[in-house]
Amino acid sequence: MREVAVLGIGQTPIEEHWEKSLRVLAGEAALAALQDAGISRVDGVFVGNMMAGSANHQQQLGAYIADWAGLRYANALHVETACSSGSAAFRAGVMAVASGVLDVVLVVGVEKMSDSPGDEITAELATAADADWESAYGVSFVALNALIMRRYMHEYGWQHEHFALFSINSHQNALHNPYARFHSPLSLQEYLKAPMVTPPINLMDASPMGDGAAAAVLVPVEHLHRFPPKPKVRVVASTAATDTIAVASRRDPLWLSAAERSARQAYAQAGVGPNDIDVFELHDAFTIMSALSLEACGFAERGQGPRLALEGEIQIGGRIPICTRGGLKARGHPVGATGMYQIVEVVQQLRGEAGETQVEGAKIGMTQNIGGSGSNIITHIFRVD
Amino acid sequence: MREVAVLGIGQTPIEEHWEKSLRVLAGEAALAALQDAGISRVDGVFVGNMMAGSANHQQQLGAYIADWAGLRYANALHVETACSSGSAAFRAGVMAVASGVLDVVLVVGVEKMSDSPGDEITAELATAADADWESAYGVSFVALNALIMRRYMHEYGWQHEHFALFSINSHQNALHNPYARFHSPLSLQEYLKAPMVTPPINLMDASPMGDGAAAAVLVPVEHLHRFPPKPKVRVVASTAATDTIAVASRRDPLWLSAAERSARQAYAQAGVGPNDIDVFELHDAFTIMSALSLEACGFAERGQGPRLALEGEIQIGGRIPICTRGGLKARGHPVGATGMYQIVEVVQQLRGEAGETQVEGAKIGMTQNIGGSGSNIITHIFRVD
Repeated sequence: MREVAVLGIGQTPIEEHWEKSLRVLAGEAALAALQDAGISRVDGVFVGNMMAGSANHQQQLGAYIADWAGLRYANALHVETACSSGSAAFRAGVMAVASGVLDVVLVVGVEKMSDSPGDEITAELATAADADWESAYGVSFVALNALIMRRYMHEYGWQHEHFALFSINSHQNALHNPYARFHSPLSLQEYLKAPMVTPPINLMDASPMGDGAAAAVLVPVEHLHRFPPKPKVRVVASTAATDTIAVASRRDPLWLSAAERSARQAYAQAGVGPNDIDVFELHDAFTIMSALSLEACGFAERGQGPRLALEGEIQIGGRIPICTRGGLKARGHPVGATGMYQIVEVVQQLRGEAGETQVEGAKIGMTQNIGGSGSNIITHIFRVD
Repeated sequence: MREVAVLGIGQTPIEEHWEKSLRVLAGEAALAALQDAGISRVDGVFVGNMMAGSANHQQQLGAYIADWAGLRYANALHVETACSSGSAAFRAGVMAVASGVLDVVLVVGVEKMSDSPGDEITAELATAADADWESAYGVSFVALNALIMRRYMHEYGWQHEHFALFSINSHQNALHNPYARFHSPLSLQEYLKAPMVTPPINLMDASPMGDGAAAAVLVPVEHLHRFPPKPKVRVVASTAATDTIAVASRRDPLWLSAAERSARQAYAQAGVGPNDIDVFELHDAFTIMSALSLEACGFAERGQGPRLALEGEIQIGGRIPICTRGGLKARGHPVGATGMYQIVEVVQQLRGEAGETQVEGAKIGMTQNIGGSGSNIITHIFRVD
């Protein structure tokens, strides 16, 4: 198996891009990544997206984006695993390069949610849950997370205010990320008095929708000498695991089994442990998911995720800095693009390009992207020499 | 790169399965393939599907089907390339096994179209075309193919009746396939007087929709000794290529560039040429596509595809038997499942399990699956020892 490196990265700002279509957004991120890599041709275009078929009336995103980006004739496909579609496409790209089937692969994560009216997008997001056993009963995606958070608070004795620092940290870091959706600090007071969405999740526990695209170029490490010199960011682990799609079918709905499995396998592949991770871009779609992801990946004891935030360990300079570019909460969560934003951001950190939110001396970074309510979880570890 | 073999196959009949949900259909094909392979565990579940997000209100088909089929925790993802989604998922599975990332991969192609009302499914099928430059102007997917067929007839001097034998051959072969949607022979008279859909495409030029699922189990050839003995069907070529998504952007709309590219690469990978192919499952979504696919793959001169049919060369016993189990026209075309049906059928031929439509002594078989109006084309070649 060939070792794989990230040669280039690109992204668009996340906002309501009323003036740009899905293909324009994807094309901008793709061309930025190609330019960063210093190349103009690729063998494959792998696209992560969740909802374009319904929200944008467009499927076939592989050929669609390859064509638009001037990469006609390339191998191209579209990968979907709900909210983890971005890193699922990345992982498929890693396998294509590792196998030797393709040499240069462009991975693009893209989602354009603004085109879909509010009630429709809620129904479209609910297709990440079980259509027969969850969505059919009217439970939305937020409601599923609210049920998990309520039970977690009851079981481990946390109050709503104890989750505040997850969102405050994300907003603080996004101040310095020009691609982030929000550039406003969040105070505890604002967090506490935010409008309720589905108790106990209020507006400041939930990540915002948005339109955006992020991209990366993958090549075999053994070919790096053929390309313009760049910091050598290697993909040292790529893992995925699933759990039941319906939350109610799980033995313990407060434990992300798939996150634990994919993280354990990732640590084994990379030959590292949680203590070796310098920066961790986790999936803070809701504050409860930050806590559960930290626990499942071995950074906190079961039920103790919020403690890490309360002790200041998730900030830049803390034991395990998370959401260093704003996370889903403040950078924004264009669903199928999110995994690629996480990867782009970790590469920025490992290259020392993260500006005011640079984690000093970061050498090993991890991303974890959660599809559904923990049903398809994908973990990557990157290392710079 | 590890060589990959097909260890097991499974399929459901294609019909309007009102009493079975998407997951039940996929599960039946998956379990049939596992049983045929003689195994009960896999490392990965790769799902090909085009329209479940809109037609069945369900995304996340990887985790969804893994969970239902008793394969919880497996790596799982959903691949989409419109009508070639099935073989795109298969190709992703081949890369996963070839790379050494996964050892045993189940690939399932599934589509359940009956749940979507007629007008909606037409719009959903049109998401395979260009939303901005084709569908937005009201051109349906059939209409795009009709434009191509009309021009082809004008350019090369063919009449509508010259395409009849493609459909007649498919219906004849489907008589002996218990999984096919239709079991009725088609006469030239019936073909000629069939109701018009979009001139010059009539109902007997077009493949029918349907619900169905087909599946295969992939393992590395070097592990075959660990499993119950089976005819050794190796994947000797797996290639893909794209073209512009909008037909009007092509230099020559009557030439499937992506089919030519992927076929050429496939011949090179397998070390064979068109004359070595014993059986060819091509993508007869419309009769015109049969002609174009035969030409692009080197079985006929440019503009001469219909001649092969008129000379009887596409039948069992002819020079290049196609659609030997009924093809899209008579076996049925559950869009995202079709590529996997083609693969399952070629494996049946190479194992000598094709009953009354067995191609005697078939050793090398090819499948070609077309996504969109020729915009994403995937070719596989299989060989039995």
